[in-house]
Amino acid sequence: MNERDVWIREVGTRDGLQSIATIFPTAAKLDWIEREAAAGVPEIEVGSFVPPKLLPQMADTAEVVAAAQRIDGLRVSALVPNLRGAQNAFAAGVDQVNYVLSVSEAHSQANVRKSVAEAIDDFGDIVAYRAAHPEYAHIRIASGLATAFGCTIAGPVAVADVVAAGEKLVALGADELVVADTVGYGNPAQCRDIFRAVLALAGEVPVGAHFHDTRGLGLANVDAALEVGVRRFDASLGGLGGCPYAPGASGNIVTDDLVFMLEAMGLSTGVDLDRLLEARALMESYLDGEATHGAIVTAGAPKGFVAASAANQGSARAAHAADR
Amino acid sequence: MNERDVWIREVGTRDGLQSIATIFPTAAKLDWIEREAAAGVPEIEVGSFVPPKLLPQMADTAEVVAAAQRIDGLRVSALVPNLRGAQNAFAAGVDQVNYVLSVSEAHSQANVRKSVAEAIDDFGDIVAYRAAHPEYAHIRIASGLATAFGCTIAGPVAVADVVAAGEKLVALGADELVVADTVGYGNPAQCRDIFRAVLALAGEVPVGAHFHDTRGLGLANVDAALEVGVRRFDASLGGLGGCPYAPGASGNIVTDDLVFMLEAMGLSTGVDLDRLLEARALMESYLDGEATHGAIVTAGAPKGFVAASAANQGSARAAHAADR
Repeated sequence: MNERDVWIREVGTRDGLQSIATIFPTAAKLDWIEREAAAGVPEIEVGSFVPPKLLPQMADTAEVVAAAQRIDGLRVSALVPNLRGAQNAFAAGVDQVNYVLSVSEAHSQANVRKSVAEAIDDFGDIVAYRAAHPEYAHIRIASGLATAFGCTIAGPVAVADVVAAGEKLVALGADELVVADTVGYGNPAQCRDIFRAVLALAGEVPVGAHFHDTRGLGLANVDAALEVGVRRFDASLGGLGGCPYAPGASGNIVTDDLVFMLEAMGLSTGVDLDRLLEARALMESYLDGEATHGAIVTAGAPKGFVAASAANQGSARAAHAADR
Repeated sequence: MNERDVWIREVGTRDGLQSIATIFPTAAKLDWIEREAAAGVPEIEVGSFVPPKLLPQMADTAEVVAAAQRIDGLRVSALVPNLRGAQNAFAAGVDQVNYVLSVSEAHSQANVRKSVAEAIDDFGDIVAYRAAHPEYAHIRIASGLATAFGCTIAGPVAVADVVAAGEKLVALGADELVVADTVGYGNPAQCRDIFRAVLALAGEVPVGAHFHDTRGLGLANVDAALEVGVRRFDASLGGLGGCPYAPGASGNIVTDDLVFMLEAMGLSTGVDLDRLLEARALMESYLDGEATHGAIVTAGAPKGFVAASAANQGSARAAHAADR
C-alpha cells in the first residue's frame, strides 16, 4: 500500500446530505460509502449525531456507522455538536468524532446559544468523557473551527480569534483541528495567513481544511493551504450540498475535482479517480433533481495524464521487482 | 488614479464570442466593451483579424477597434494569426496585437499547418513590419504561447519547449508574452514551474497568463501564478465561451470571479466589481441561451468585504487630503 501525500475526508454524506431536500435511505448511504471507500477515500464523515427532529436526514447515523465499520481500512467519523452526541457516536462505534465550534462569537450565540468559551468547555467535556471510558481510548476527537474565514453575522473574523480557540482545543487534547470556511468567504491570501498561524500552534496535531466553493475560490484556497503545509482536506462528492437559499451556489469543494488537482500536482491521495467518478454516478442516481457540481466529470482527464497515486504504485511495484 | 497591482485583459469579446453560436451585432459588442471599460477593466481584446469566412463573429473587428478607440484610457487589443492579420489590425488602429503560436509541434501543424519555427518566423515578420512603418511604432506586439500546459493531440508539453519558444520571441522583440493553457490542462504545480521559467527568461518583458477553467482549476492556477510573480491575467466576463463539444464545460476563467479573488487578496485591479457585474448582465442580455458561469454573481461579496481597489482609492484620497 502506498503512502498518501494528502488525506481526503469525504463529508458529502454529512454536510451534503443535510443540505438537500432528498432523504437518502440507509441503504443508499451505505451504497455510496462502500463505493467511495472502494475508490480509496480513507475517511468518510458518515453522518452526524444530532437530534433527529432537527435533521431527519441524519436519524440513521448510528446504523450507518455500524455498517460502515465493516469496510476494511476506512476511518469512520461523524459530526457531533456536543457531549451527548459524542456519547452516542462512541457507543455507535465511530473511529473519530468531529466536534465543531464557531470562532465567531456572534455565530456561536446564534447557532448554539453558547459563547465560544462555553463551546470550548464542551469540547473538554468530550475529551474528559473519553478519558473516563478506557474502552473509547482509541477514538480520535477532532474539532472544527467554523467561521474562521468570516461570518455572515459579524463579517470579518480575526486570525487571533482562530488562534486563541485553536490553542485551547490543542491544550485540551484535540487529535486534529479542522479550520473551516463555513460560508465560502475565504481567499488564498487569507488561507496562507490563517493556516500558517494554526499549523504553528498545532505542533504535531494534524490540521485540516474545510472549504466551501460558494464564491468559486475553493480550489484556489486548497492551493494556498497546500503551499503552507496543509495536507488534509474535506470535500463532497459531486459538490453535493450547496445552499438551499442560493440557487446555483455550490457547497463543499468537489471531491472529484480535488482528487484530480492533487494527483495532477504530483500529490498522491490513494484515490482512483475513475472509480471515484463511478461512486459519484451512483450517488447521483439517488438524487431527486438536486444539482451536482464539478468539472472533471465532464471534461475528463488531460491526454497523457498520470495520477500521482498510480505513478507511486508503479514505482512501488518497480521497486519491489528490483528487490527480487 | 490608483496604480493597479494586477492587469486584467478581457478576452470574452474574442475568445468567448468566437466559441458561441450567437453572433453579436457590432452595437452589442460596443455596448459590452464600453460598459466593461467603464467598470475599470484596462484592456479588452475586442476581436481578431482572421478571415471572415473562418469566423463570421469577428468580421466587424476593424469597426469595433475604431469605435473602442474612442473610450478614454482603454488599451484596445486584437488577436492576429499572422502578418496579414497584423497589418489589418495596425491599419484599424489597435494599441496592441496579440499573436499566438502553439508550443506543441503537433498542434501547430494541425492548427495552422506550420512548424513552431515557422510560426516564430511569422512573429518576426510582424515585428519587422512595425519597424518598417514608423507610424505604427507605438503599437505593442504580444505573443501567446498556446498549448504550453499540454495539448489534446500530443499530450504533455515540455517546459523546455515553452522556454525555447519564449526566448526566441523575446529576442525578436516581443512586448509581452502570454502563456496559455489553451485546453484547461494546467495545474498549480505546473503553473509554478512554467511561470518561474518564463518570468526568468522574459526579464523586463511582461508575462501574462491565459487560463481556461475546463477542469475547474482556473483560479487555483491563478493563485499559483500570482505566487511566483505573474501580475497579468486574461479572463472572460461571465466565463463566456466554453467548448461547444463539452456541455457544461466553461471557457476562460471568469472575469468577475477573478476580480473578486484578487481584490479579496488585497491586490488592486482597478475594477469596480459591482459595475463589472452590471456589464455582465448587459452582456448576458444579448445571449441566445448560451450558458454563463461564475460564483460571485450568485453569492455576492462576503459581509464586510472591502475591495483592495476601493481601499487604495480610500488611502489615495486620505493622502491627498493630508497634502492640503
